Amino acid sequence: MENEIFQLQYALDTFYFLICGALVMWMAAGFAMLEAGLVRSKNTTEILTKNVALYAISCIMYMVCGYAIMYGGDIMLATITGDGVTGAEEAATYAPSADFFFQVVFVATAMSIVSGAVAERMKLWAFLAFAVVMTGFIYPMEGSWTWGGNAVFGMYTLGDLGFSDFAGSGIVHMAGAAAALAGVLLLGARKGKYGPNGQVNAIPGANLPLATLGTFILWMGWFGFNGGSVLATASVESANSVAVVFMNTNAAAAGGLVAALAVARILFGKADLTMALNGALAGLVAITAEPSTPTALQATLFGAVGGVLVVFSILTLDKLKIDDPVGAISVHGVVGLLGLLLVPVTNDGSSFSGQIIGALTIFGWVFITSLIVWGVLKAVIGIRVSEEEEYEGVDLSECGMEAYPEFTTK
Amino acid sequence: MENEIFQLQYALDTFYFLICGALVMWMAAGFAMLEAGLVRSKNTTEILTKNVALYAISCIMYMVCGYAIMYGGDIMLATITGDGVTGAEEAATYAPSADFFFQVVFVATAMSIVSGAVAERMKLWAFLAFAVVMTGFIYPMEGSWTWGGNAVFGMYTLGDLGFSDFAGSGIVHMAGAAAALAGVLLLGARKGKYGPNGQVNAIPGANLPLATLGTFILWMGWFGFNGGSVLATASVESANSVAVVFMNTNAAAAGGLVAALAVARILFGKADLTMALNGALAGLVAITAEPSTPTALQATLFGAVGGVLVVFSILTLDKLKIDDPVGAISVHGVVGLLGLLLVPVTNDGSSFSGQIIGALTIFGWVFITSLIVWGVLKAVIGIRVSEEEEYEGVDLSECGMEAYPEFTTK
Amino acid sequence: MENEIFQLQYALDTFYFLICGALVMWMAAGFAMLEAGLVRSKNTTEILTKNVALYAISCIMYMVCGYAIMYGGDIMLATITGDGVTGAEEAATYAPSADFFFQVVFVATAMSIVSGAVAERMKLWAFLAFAVVMTGFIYPMEGSWTWGGNAVFGMYTLGDLGFSDFAGSGIVHMAGAAAALAGVLLLGARKGKYGPNGQVNAIPGANLPLATLGTFILWMGWFGFNGGSVLATASVESANSVAVVFMNTNAAAAGGLVAALAVARILFGKADLTMALNGALAGLVAITAEPSTPTALQATLFGAVGGVLVVFSILTLDKLKIDDPVGAISVHGVVGLLGLLLVPVTNDGSSFSGQIIGALTIFGWVFITSLIVWGVLKAVIGIRVSEEEEYEGVDLSECGMEAYPEFTTK
Repeated sequence: MENEIFQLQYALDTFYFLICGALVMWMAAGFAMLEAGLVRSKNTTEILTKNVALYAISCIMYMVCGYAIMYGGDIMLATITGDGVTGAEEAATYAPSADFFFQVVFVATAMSIVSGAVAERMKLWAFLAFAVVMTGFIYPMEGSWTWGGNAVFGMYTLGDLGFSDFAGSGIVHMAGAAAALAGVLLLGARKGKYGPNGQVNAIPGANLPLATLGTFILWMGWFGFNGGSVLATASVESANSVAVVFMNTNAAAAGGLVAALAVARILFGKADLTMALNGALAGLVAITAEPSTPTALQATLFGAVGGVLVVFSILTLDKLKIDDPVGAISVHGVVGLLGLLLVPVTNDGSSFSGQIIGALTIFGWVFITSLIVWGVLKAVIGIRVSEEEEYEGVDLSECGMEAYPEFTTK
Repeated sequence: MENEIFQLQYALDTFYFLICGALVMWMAAGFAMLEAGLVRSKNTTEILTKNVALYAISCIMYMVCGYAIMYGGDIMLATITGDGVTGAEEAATYAPSADFFFQVVFVATAMSIVSGAVAERMKLWAFLAFAVVMTGFIYPMEGSWTWGGNAVFGMYTLGDLGFSDFAGSGIVHMAGAAAALAGVLLLGARKGKYGPNGQVNAIPGANLPLATLGTFILWMGWFGFNGGSVLATASVESANSVAVVFMNTNAAAAGGLVAALAVARILFGKADLTMALNGALAGLVAITAEPSTPTALQATLFGAVGGVLVVFSILTLDKLKIDDPVGAISVHGVVGLLGLLLVPVTNDGSSFSGQIIGALTIFGWVFITSLIVWGVLKAVIGIRVSEEEEYEGVDLSECGMEAYPEFTTK
Repeated sequence: MENEIFQLQYALDTFYFLICGALVMWMAAGFAMLEAGLVRSKNTTEILTKNVALYAISCIMYMVCGYAIMYGGDIMLATITGDGVTGAEEAATYAPSADFFFQVVFVATAMSIVSGAVAERMKLWAFLAFAVVMTGFIYPMEGSWTWGGNAVFGMYTLGDLGFSDFAGSGIVHMAGAAAALAGVLLLGARKGKYGPNGQVNAIPGANLPLATLGTFILWMGWFGFNGGSVLATASVESANSVAVVFMNTNAAAAGGLVAALAVARILFGKADLTMALNGALAGLVAITAEPSTPTALQATLFGAVGGVLVVFSILTLDKLKIDDPVGAISVHGVVGLLGLLLVPVTNDGSSFSGQIIGALTIFGWVFITSLIVWGVLKAVIGIRVSEEEEYEGVDLSECGMEAYPEFTTK
């Protein structure tokens, strides 16, 4: 009977992992819709193609070598077979393939962040080549130093320094933003985004219902992202923790949305939907580094801080002529850092110094390696489409088909 | 070992609540897509903004005071901390924060119903101000008299009178519709909807795939809405009940859809997609008051009655010049009442008199308080946009951006 | 305590069924969005109407008689009541109504496949009439010979011959494609699809974000489709199996997407989004017949084979002038057969001869009976809209409303 109880715990934890993983997989659709809604119609097919392809590439590369780099074990998941898992099964408290499934969808999230920032002017195949390196090597390396528990280049161990990142404000979101920033810097702004006299021209997204849908999908998927990061649910303690994480994740998004809406109202005089959406996402990113220890009120406030920050970050990046069509660097990078810095406020097991060292390690590693990879790609195959292709839209040049062939009136 | 079994029950019930809650949260996306699809393109950004903002406001207000009003406990959820819950934990059979999470998404559902009915002419900030009062006070009060178990103004207790509303045909859906009706009456019809000689002009929605998607999202989310309302699943009895609820919820939606499609075919000679969608939603609302006792056949038939009723209700409201762009008052109000009245057919624990008294109590409270709040808002800041703003579309005046800037050919 | 453990197993297995069922139900939305995105705007309302109506009809017909035909028991689910189930409850390991709920959403999947293939020229009411027969009789009959375990016309039992189809590559997907093929052959190609000198004219879909969303929805829903087909999860063995199925389902889709994208790049010189989407779906169909025994690497490769095959199949069908607007016959039929043939590679319990006999049985039965039903419908009420209606779009003639009244510039 002891064994039957163990089996039930194992089964419930495994099922919980799988459902949370399915919710995180769903975030890939969220990023795709968000980005497709925020670009112009002439670049929509291409951003959709990038999104579906990067998800598939993430799944393949993480299976081939990423998971082994991050958590040890053999390449190609050789120890996870169709019969479950070989070896060590006795010790496991959930199915190893469920663990892989949950982890692999995180990789895709990190990569999804990049596609938005480089939208509307990056070559599709250069982007996909970057995705191969990012998901098979860059992300798994920093993941091995954080969740994997390895010492950074054998020198220092982040966990020992008081670094804590529950579900990945830094490890996933800021990492994705760092890779995006490196790409954007080498890529340059879209033609016409910044005028000669410092003016910033708005380039409105073509389909706001799609962007809203994407945000709702991300919001929903985030319950799996954060909730699954408790890593267990089959006891009173872990169940309480998962429940608090769901409650706080939702509260932070709500706080971020309302705060960004209010700030935009004050600054622009209008109810700016895209800022509200980015505010919700900022709230989600802000709580991700520690959703289990704040109260619901604290979570709402932390989200609100994220929502305020993201509006000013988007405005600042535009002043710096860092062109990010969907605001991904602000939402995931700037607010991802905020998330890390908020952890010690409610979690005694972490320290500000640890959070800062962790943030620098993650950002430094991902930014520098990404810069190298983007640089090599730029030198070898080029990363930017031609001026004419950009003007005509990358849908025709890269994909050979329009996203809305009957709607646009150009 | 006794304790381990308790822990597993607690964990499974908590996880079940959280997943059902996530599905209900997803309904917020469903309402947003449904309404965005059924309004004209020039009012789409605004309806999206209302939908995301009302969801966020609901989450904040219910956290601040709504939950305490409805179920007792301190404001700001002070007794639900990041460590789980303080006090009374021994007695609980699932995580208190999971209970809050499940309840909070219901509030948002009630509020979502309002936004559709007042679409295309109500001021955004007046609407959001109403949302604050509705989700922080009006809904929690009637919730305290029903699911909360409190006596109505200390006078009579609905449960004692034989009132039963399993998942909220009345408490959530009719309540939302009552608030919407009060708003619509003070707001008036859209310009051009009703001609001088009594003719009713169709104002087609701009994006029917979006409306269809919204309906599918609502259909899916409703499994959590009704299924979670069993409030437990970790025993044979409760698991059977949850399973029957899923089966019947699906059956009622199917019955409603086919019935509305058939009635519309007879009346209009065409396969009217929007009526079919409203029929499915009507089926869902009709079964919500009691999805656990009917057979699958009864559930299908109850849904079909809802589907027939909703078509005639929509036509009747138009004759009365009550302009509801998405049919929300018919779907949630008229069919919500039907749902309440169907309960005693299969549930011996309820009575027709109890259902009628409950319906009058809920409708009376929500309608009158809403009328007061809308009235105050109308007097103080105004609730209707100017004629010119309505003509130009509220997207530009309220949000400063178009939903589809490249598509419309106006 | 023994009983309490049984209750927990029962409850967990039931909950698992319900969640997987909800995910499969969600696939109905996926098919609707995929098909709505791939047809022209003038035929979009009608394809949406077909999709919502076929789902509802499937639920009703399977409740009325389909489930009884396939698995025995009384019509109208008379033995599954609101109190759970009468009789035999002791022996059951999960709620019977959960089993029905999970099975019924499969029927809808089979039927959804048909709507895409016959899009843009079939009469709506003829299609719905076919749906009644398909979901109430044709599918349940072949289901009774496979998952139901009955001998085919009392002559041979597929299971005894080594036939194995885990989640329905053949039983669901190829069956749907067989019905679709029969319809397409009697219906003929869309006007203008094939030129007089053998040229194939591309007819681009009106809304690729919608098609992409549909694919993501299907991908997500497939976790329930395949994962739920393990039929239990409350033990270490079954939990491991479910986890492997989730992992492999995801891997196969990823493999299919990348392979189809690469093949299309080689053949057409472009990153063809619609081929990538069909590649992902092909990967999913290919793994469906046996997702539990391959390794993750094998699953990826099986999916890739599906992805390559689907591109060539689509090109070949066009050469044969079999006009399938969304590629459903290739994705679900040709790759469904591939899925069946891949089973013996990793599953010792099956044989190639068994798979071939099973495939012939399913295809033969569904194709012939469908041909008869389509033929009768053609003779009695006609299955094809008039040439003028086809030119104007079936939205106006069948549904009386446009899907995007403000966007198209015709």
